[in-house]
Amino acid sequence: MVRVAILGATGYSAKEAIRLLLAHPHAQITALTTRQDDLPHLGDVHPSLRGRLDLRLENLNAAQLAERADCAFCCLPHAASAEVIKEILPLGMRAVDLSADYRLNDPAVYKKWYDHDHPDAARMAKTVYGLPELYRERIPKSQLVANPGCYPTSTILPLAPLLKAGLISPDGIIVDSKSGVSGAGRTPKLNFHYPEANESFSAYGVGTHRHMPEIDQVLSDFGGKTTEVIFTPHLVPMDRGILTTTYSTPTKPVDAATILAELRKFYANEPFVRVVDGLPTTKDVTNTNYCDLTARVVRGRVVTISVIDNLIKGAAGAAVQNFNLMYGFEETTAL
Amino acid sequence: MVRVAILGATGYSAKEAIRLLLAHPHAQITALTTRQDDLPHLGDVHPSLRGRLDLRLENLNAAQLAERADCAFCCLPHAASAEVIKEILPLGMRAVDLSADYRLNDPAVYKKWYDHDHPDAARMAKTVYGLPELYRERIPKSQLVANPGCYPTSTILPLAPLLKAGLISPDGIIVDSKSGVSGAGRTPKLNFHYPEANESFSAYGVGTHRHMPEIDQVLSDFGGKTTEVIFTPHLVPMDRGILTTTYSTPTKPVDAATILAELRKFYANEPFVRVVDGLPTTKDVTNTNYCDLTARVVRGRVVTISVIDNLIKGAAGAAVQNFNLMYGFEETTAL
Amino acid sequence: MVRVAILGATGYSAKEAIRLLLAHPHAQITALTTRQDDLPHLGDVHPSLRGRLDLRLENLNAAQLAERADCAFCCLPHAASAEVIKEILPLGMRAVDLSADYRLNDPAVYKKWYDHDHPDAARMAKTVYGLPELYRERIPKSQLVANPGCYPTSTILPLAPLLKAGLISPDGIIVDSKSGVSGAGRTPKLNFHYPEANESFSAYGVGTHRHMPEIDQVLSDFGGKTTEVIFTPHLVPMDRGILTTTYSTPTKPVDAATILAELRKFYANEPFVRVVDGLPTTKDVTNTNYCDLTARVVRGRVVTISVIDNLIKGAAGAAVQNFNLMYGFEETTAL
Amino acid sequence: MVRVAILGATGYSAKEAIRLLLAHPHAQITALTTRQDDLPHLGDVHPSLRGRLDLRLENLNAAQLAERADCAFCCLPHAASAEVIKEILPLGMRAVDLSADYRLNDPAVYKKWYDHDHPDAARMAKTVYGLPELYRERIPKSQLVANPGCYPTSTILPLAPLLKAGLISPDGIIVDSKSGVSGAGRTPKLNFHYPEANESFSAYGVGTHRHMPEIDQVLSDFGGKTTEVIFTPHLVPMDRGILTTTYSTPTKPVDAATILAELRKFYANEPFVRVVDGLPTTKDVTNTNYCDLTARVVRGRVVTISVIDNLIKGAAGAAVQNFNLMYGFEETTAL
Repeated sequence: MVRVAILGATGYSAKEAIRLLLAHPHAQITALTTRQDDLPHLGDVHPSLRGRLDLRLENLNAAQLAERADCAFCCLPHAASAEVIKEILPLGMRAVDLSADYRLNDPAVYKKWYDHDHPDAARMAKTVYGLPELYRERIPKSQLVANPGCYPTSTILPLAPLLKAGLISPDGIIVDSKSGVSGAGRTPKLNFHYPEANESFSAYGVGTHRHMPEIDQVLSDFGGKTTEVIFTPHLVPMDRGILTTTYSTPTKPVDAATILAELRKFYANEPFVRVVDGLPTTKDVTNTNYCDLTARVVRGRVVTISVIDNLIKGAAGAAVQNFNLMYGFEETTAL
Repeated sequence: MVRVAILGATGYSAKEAIRLLLAHPHAQITALTTRQDDLPHLGDVHPSLRGRLDLRLENLNAAQLAERADCAFCCLPHAASAEVIKEILPLGMRAVDLSADYRLNDPAVYKKWYDHDHPDAARMAKTVYGLPELYRERIPKSQLVANPGCYPTSTILPLAPLLKAGLISPDGIIVDSKSGVSGAGRTPKLNFHYPEANESFSAYGVGTHRHMPEIDQVLSDFGGKTTEVIFTPHLVPMDRGILTTTYSTPTKPVDAATILAELRKFYANEPFVRVVDGLPTTKDVTNTNYCDLTARVVRGRVVTISVIDNLIKGAAGAAVQNFNLMYGFEETTAL
Repeated sequence: MVRVAILGATGYSAKEAIRLLLAHPHAQITALTTRQDDLPHLGDVHPSLRGRLDLRLENLNAAQLAERADCAFCCLPHAASAEVIKEILPLGMRAVDLSADYRLNDPAVYKKWYDHDHPDAARMAKTVYGLPELYRERIPKSQLVANPGCYPTSTILPLAPLLKAGLISPDGIIVDSKSGVSGAGRTPKLNFHYPEANESFSAYGVGTHRHMPEIDQVLSDFGGKTTEVIFTPHLVPMDRGILTTTYSTPTKPVDAATILAELRKFYANEPFVRVVDGLPTTKDVTNTNYCDLTARVVRGRVVTISVIDNLIKGAAGAAVQNFNLMYGFEETTAL
Repeated sequence: MVRVAILGATGYSAKEAIRLLLAHPHAQITALTTRQDDLPHLGDVHPSLRGRLDLRLENLNAAQLAERADCAFCCLPHAASAEVIKEILPLGMRAVDLSADYRLNDPAVYKKWYDHDHPDAARMAKTVYGLPELYRERIPKSQLVANPGCYPTSTILPLAPLLKAGLISPDGIIVDSKSGVSGAGRTPKLNFHYPEANESFSAYGVGTHRHMPEIDQVLSDFGGKTTEVIFTPHLVPMDRGILTTTYSTPTKPVDAATILAELRKFYANEPFVRVVDGLPTTKDVTNTNYCDLTARVVRGRVVTISVIDNLIKGAAGAAVQNFNLMYGFEETTAL
């Protein structure tokens, strides 16, 4: 039984991680932490979990954590996450980091996009990007895994195999993503106030979203050629789900069947990627760890459409998948 | 042309009032006030009104207001509203107060439910309750009109005629109301954060909502017998609209046809009340000043169902209706 | 391993039952039936289940069913359900009936509310009403269990203990229920067309809903006194969830603490009923088999508020709970 | 006073047209037609219009129509619309056609995309495309105006000025559009059944939507160079609103300020186009005839974002705008 601590237990990703781990036969949640002063019982923070786990939130330091838990699911904001992780790893803990802190390899890129120096820059380049479909073999050995961002997961899964196979050009790829509101977190703000967000659809962070360099880095690394995407996220009036539409130029004329065949070959043995013929909807994957994806060719352009649940495959589900790989459990356990 | 100032222009009721008044042939909005420090342009506060009215929000005192406007639409919170109104009325301004401050007659009841002394208690009892369907004749003479609450409007319109006619007993009336989220105002709070409120339905303020004594007072006054309702408001995952279901005991056995006939008779000449045979939905009245209502008899109990748009007939629309009556314009102007 | 057939596999309750049973360690789904002519693969009917179960829908007769399965989850419409069940039970199969066919005891009451003779009237009175919280001891012995309706479950759980304890009067109980749209089934109709149902709230079936006699029967039977409720269902613009507000008269003056204590005592050992102090929201129980409930006293009336997921505790989850009890599995398995 | 007939009065565009025309000082609705057999009163088809207009729907032939009305708002499906229009124009009526029948110029293109011969092919090329912002001067002279499609309006308004000015290349323009569900019409279908469409986001008609050739034709005509867009429509879980994101390649390096300046210059005197600095949301234009739009440059690509209400600027509002121009009324009347 692996003892797990959930760091930053008040948000949506943490709630989903707790819910999934409560059904995990080899994990036991032994600590829930928060940086806030009030230390409510779990059932008061997340009423859906009332009666499921009798724990209060706590303010814990690294030493206390290391006594109480073997592995941390780190759901803290960026910077705060690295501050904790650089303390607990030397104490022997392992960690899945759901923040953005260890996804990028390059401290300079991090500083440019996150506006501050990385608190643990030395560890950035050697941390595995925890997308098992691309980097599975590196995960079991890792003390720390950087859990991918939600938009990047939905973008990289359809594009990476096509870039790797040389079917599409790395130049000028358009990534038009649409996310449910839970992706914005649980802190109330006017933009996400119900009567503002409901019955409304909008773009945000056009050309400035922090997931853009993350997508670039992984596609460049896996595809083997420098890739810079034009990324536009949008806000959908629904709780959860991301659909990403990409537009890319094939390296030579291609039809949809060829693209689909490549995707099917690449994902033939993946438990959580379903390459489908029809057009997937976000509801097809709600509350699951699946990514459903398909492709079309329109007027010579390759169009891919992929869907995930942003809180599961885009966050807590991927974290449990990484946890399973790190500890040698069946990859699909509790998913 | 009546010069109108909107006091507290940042909220939803204010936005609707501005939108309605922009189409009013005899009103001109000359001032928009806020108590906040930043003084944005109207189009930045309410983007839907971009280009419709070239005004910035201002911090204005009573004297300045009285120079710039003839009439105030007061969209301030309770207490703040009375503080302003007691200053501007002596300067000759008239006002429609959309807050709760002048709806109740009794300062003691006000203090009990609002937890503070009324800033202008002497004016409470003499201020007309601006529900034209019950008190139309008192409105034209008034310098100040208390615009009714949204739940009370949806509750009083079906019940008042039946109590007045002696068809139902004033004892033990159940009022089960359901409101869209805009009724909670525009300040972000966790309960109204999109991923919390969406796909969820809840009760709140059970037996403690401040609209309960308002309903009691008006039904008691108009019906002529002391009435105390059991009132439960609920939150519906939608922007706007209130549906109120009431359950009351007839004074003698009655059928639905009799109830409907009484309601039809009472509202025969009302421009904004539609007594219908079918079951109305909130969408039937969205963006209108209508109240649609009907009645059934179930196992000897009288059941009424009524719908309004909480921001129009429940707030800004009723305010414009009162404004029209105060100034002698056609009652339906701009509605 | 119990072999399970899902009869009428195209609807929402069937989908949830399949999803739950796929995670059940002692159940194996061996047949999916439909009465329609096209016989699609499960993944085409319910895209969220793509790749989870490799079965096509079939038109099966009773004899074929009995060879292929030990137990049927019957998700057919009323009448159609009894037609099948009266054939498969003599062949040795057991069944959980999610239709309304065996909930009522009295063929005359059934005919009055369902407008046709019951196809299997003799079996009505002897079939257990599968609400384990009230009738658990009768379920393990049963070949057939009538799974309760969604509104009745949300209504009976808060009221039955109070009636049984004599704390509230059986006369004049008001039941004001609100349900998400999935409760209306999966057949497209104008009322449930997205642009009609969205951003709208309405009452329907006022005094005429078929769940009213079901509530009466169970409360009368369990409470020991004839009970006739005034029942009004409403449609909420959300996918799933029911919140029921009841209003009843205490037999003698009572406070909320007394009511809550009685409910806590009654449900002390129940795995799926959570008596809570705060006001529950439907989202607290979404995708779970919980019923969360609480009570207040307002102006001398007892007000209860209860929430369930209409497709889980109100349908497929309760069916799995009954299945577990019938076969002697841990009651909470797969829930 | 112009007498107006609404042909095909049961759908959403017709409802909005009726609502707008009821407030029009120079229009009088004199007939509402349907091709269905039941001939309900308007208030039964569109409950929100109860008491607003005392007319029943009728089955009318062309001769009767021409006696009763001067102008038709044709809200019929494609093909059906042209069948009626080719009969009523020779009788002297004028028409705004909200169907797709007269938007395309080329009968061969029409046949390819609509799968049948055009019933009135000779009139196609000479009918004006009723987008006043591009073709205002041709509208007053017209007996027939082809009202633009909703997606095309939201796409053409941001792109046409940039193509005309030579700022962007006509090659490889990506058009990623997102629409509320009312765009799919009022006929119930499984895809638009509330529990299917709600909390879900999907793409549809990828590369096959009939608005694609319409966009091509208008951009090619107005821009002066053959333009073929890659068009992907998506379905958003909301009632109304379209947001279109376009991606195009500038003809030479450009910044956002230059693009915005060109758009501001082009639309300087347009009453219904608001070029904005911030990112517009669909809610900013709900229930209005505005198109709000802006532009960014991301990694050398020009990105435009535009929003309209699909039923107003995308249908009925544009129709009233065209009606006003046809008859010489102030263009903004009733809008």
